[in-house]
Amino acid sequence: MPTIGVDVGGTKCLGVVLDDDGKVLAEHRVPTPQMGSGPALIAAVAEVAGQLQGGAAMRVGVGVPGLVDRGGTLRFAPNIVGVTELPVREELSKQLGVPVQVDNDATCAVWAERAVGAGAGRAHLILVTLGTGIGGGVVVDGQLVRGSHGFAGEIGHMVIDAVGGLPCPCGQRGCWERYASGSGLGRLAREAAHARQVPRVVELAGGDPEAVRGEHVTRAAADGDPAAREVMNRFGWWVALGLANLANAFDTECFVLGGGLVEAGDILLAPVRASFLDLVEAAEHRPPVDIIPATLGEHAGAIGAAMLARPN
Amino acid sequence: MPTIGVDVGGTKCLGVVLDDDGKVLAEHRVPTPQMGSGPALIAAVAEVAGQLQGGAAMRVGVGVPGLVDRGGTLRFAPNIVGVTELPVREELSKQLGVPVQVDNDATCAVWAERAVGAGAGRAHLILVTLGTGIGGGVVVDGQLVRGSHGFAGEIGHMVIDAVGGLPCPCGQRGCWERYASGSGLGRLAREAAHARQVPRVVELAGGDPEAVRGEHVTRAAADGDPAAREVMNRFGWWVALGLANLANAFDTECFVLGGGLVEAGDILLAPVRASFLDLVEAAEHRPPVDIIPATLGEHAGAIGAAMLARPN
Repeated sequence: MPTIGVDVGGTKCLGVVLDDDGKVLAEHRVPTPQMGSGPALIAAVAEVAGQLQGGAAMRVGVGVPGLVDRGGTLRFAPNIVGVTELPVREELSKQLGVPVQVDNDATCAVWAERAVGAGAGRAHLILVTLGTGIGGGVVVDGQLVRGSHGFAGEIGHMVIDAVGGLPCPCGQRGCWERYASGSGLGRLAREAAHARQVPRVVELAGGDPEAVRGEHVTRAAADGDPAAREVMNRFGWWVALGLANLANAFDTECFVLGGGLVEAGDILLAPVRASFLDLVEAAEHRPPVDIIPATLGEHAGAIGAAMLARPN
Repeated sequence: MPTIGVDVGGTKCLGVVLDDDGKVLAEHRVPTPQMGSGPALIAAVAEVAGQLQGGAAMRVGVGVPGLVDRGGTLRFAPNIVGVTELPVREELSKQLGVPVQVDNDATCAVWAERAVGAGAGRAHLILVTLGTGIGGGVVVDGQLVRGSHGFAGEIGHMVIDAVGGLPCPCGQRGCWERYASGSGLGRLAREAAHARQVPRVVELAGGDPEAVRGEHVTRAAADGDPAAREVMNRFGWWVALGLANLANAFDTECFVLGGGLVEAGDILLAPVRASFLDLVEAAEHRPPVDIIPATLGEHAGAIGAAMLARPN
């Protein structure tokens, strides 16, 4: 029995129809309402799901960025301005007339990567999405870790540089996502640009150090520019630092890295893997931990949401 | 059917006989061999277990501080000098002639606190032992989290102050246990003593700032000394910082704090609870997370080890 999954992203709401084998039968997307009110967000998801349903009573799963409780209420969404305590499941069930399951977006994505993606068949797996921020989804002993209220996997705000760290909009200092996200790479690169360390990167950005973005570094590094590679090494250290903390706590066998940055491939992964071995406790006494790229791309969240919508 | 549990601590190996209701029927202890070789350590545990068995073929569980793999080999023990890759389970089964189960000591302790201690009946629980270092045991959805190899819960070496942090013997900088352990409190207190901020504390230590230990601060704070309380507030912030990181990742409902420091009661717990609310992501949108003292004291590890020795 096919189900529908909708992933609410920063720019788009992407929906899929998924069959029992995990195959995408159809997809539809609409822009995510910006600065959206709760009702506008619900309406966007309902539009995507309704379009895909086409009158059939398919169950719907939804992945939302933020703290989603086990009743399907979006309690807090750091990246959706003005939306808190939004009863997503209740509202959508009413509007769509089918059972609706709502989870955190990275929770959905890890479930998809584990079923039909990079982490297929793994009993222990952590998905880390390196985007504007950092999201996380965790599988332990083959089970999804939702936590006591559904909020598990909020790893982007793990404080890793408490004293002198960069301020984070969340109110803390030194959150991991200040350093190891796509935005973190951009910041590192602009610092290097202002220090005149990465002329080729600045050239790719049109000559203005302030215009440097992560993509300019990864492109220059892929072309073999040693200065850009050095920035990637530094960035890889920050990514690995958080992964090592997580490996110490969860003893996972596999990190699946998602998000746009991962398209850089080994330009990113090689430095992360190298630093991870320096940072995890007692690396020489542990079996290796795999650090691999996600394979489902932008569809991971929607596919996982559709899977989680299946009746138990 | 009673089982035996032995907890290998920094100073003693403590063993108990536990009945099916979780009641301690007998106990026995010997000093932990210092700078011990592997065989000396095995012999000490075998002596405790053998004494408690008294000829009966009771199953034996052992809790060991360090990375214990799922086959019962102690891969790495930061606090037992010179012991690595020690096949504890294999050696003990041979010597004792009964099935032996070996786990990390904090993993044992969390299982005990969850069954008959402070965390009784909780589905989501993290035990954090604040001793010389910091140990951790994790329960998710009512199940022990051992991780893919048995190494989960190594939370003391979570890096929380990456750039300017204190060096740790593990080779990293800024590990949580440099700040939030008993040793961390002593260091904070000596800093305050040298800065002449805590005269009452120095007095309790016999007048020498360098002789100040954590216990002098907790005693002065319990007596109402405002300067000692200020040190406890600062210390509580460091404890809470790591708990907040763990709460963000695991969404646990309850932290059980163990180790000698916890005898300070609310002198410690009140500042930790207050700072936790400042540090965890979106505290105002989460149900409260309990932060409570362990109740099984020095017996927790042995009780848990005995429980984990029960046949499935």
